Amino acid sequence: MKTYYAVIFTSKRTVEDGEGYAKMAEVMDELAQKQPGFIRVESARNADGKGITVSYWESLEAIQVWRENSKHLVAQQFGKEKWYMQYNVEICQVIKDYSFIQN
Amino acid sequence: MKTYYAVIFTSKRTVEDGEGYAKMAEVMDELAQKQPGFIRVESARNADGKGITVSYWESLEAIQVWRENSKHLVAQQFGKEKWYMQYNVEICQVIKDYSFIQN
Repeated sequence: MKTYYAVIFTSKRTVEDGEGYAKMAEVMDELAQKQPGFIRVESARNADGKGITVSYWESLEAIQVWRENSKHLVAQQFGKEKWYMQYNVEICQVIKDYSFIQN
Repeated sequence: MKTYYAVIFTSKRTVEDGEGYAKMAEVMDELAQKQPGFIRVESARNADGKGITVSYWESLEAIQVWRENSKHLVAQQFGKEKWYMQYNVEICQVIKDYSFIQN
């Protein structure tokens, strides 16, 4: 298995789709997908506002570049001020993976 | 930071709460929390059936023990047969973490 990395972003939203969150999230997803080293992103959010986004990357350098991307920084700042009650981020190295698909 | 591990379980459900899924998920969550080395678990699921569960563990051995737990194995088998169209699992070592809480 080629080494790759995951960024786990767990968040608790403030208000339902307040202040342009959905649009910003969509723009951030598109922007992330254009970054060098991006592999894929998965997101899920409960009706109560609890959400998890996992993005996968080829290197720690790619994660660092994305973290410092200027447009992403603006979204991070908005996120802190308006959208999130709290969030946690874990940057991880994937050690092993497997999958199942229903026939 | 003390070394710890994350198991990312991304799934696509078959039918809404079919065949006792919710009950089994609840029992599995309770059981996981009793395992040695368990830290915490986070879950979110979209209305369309896409879900992400991340469990955090103190060691790879704890993850292995949980994976081979007999009751959990039954749930895994049910999951393959009935509840999941597909799932992916990544076992990861957390390299770095940070968090934000709204004042």
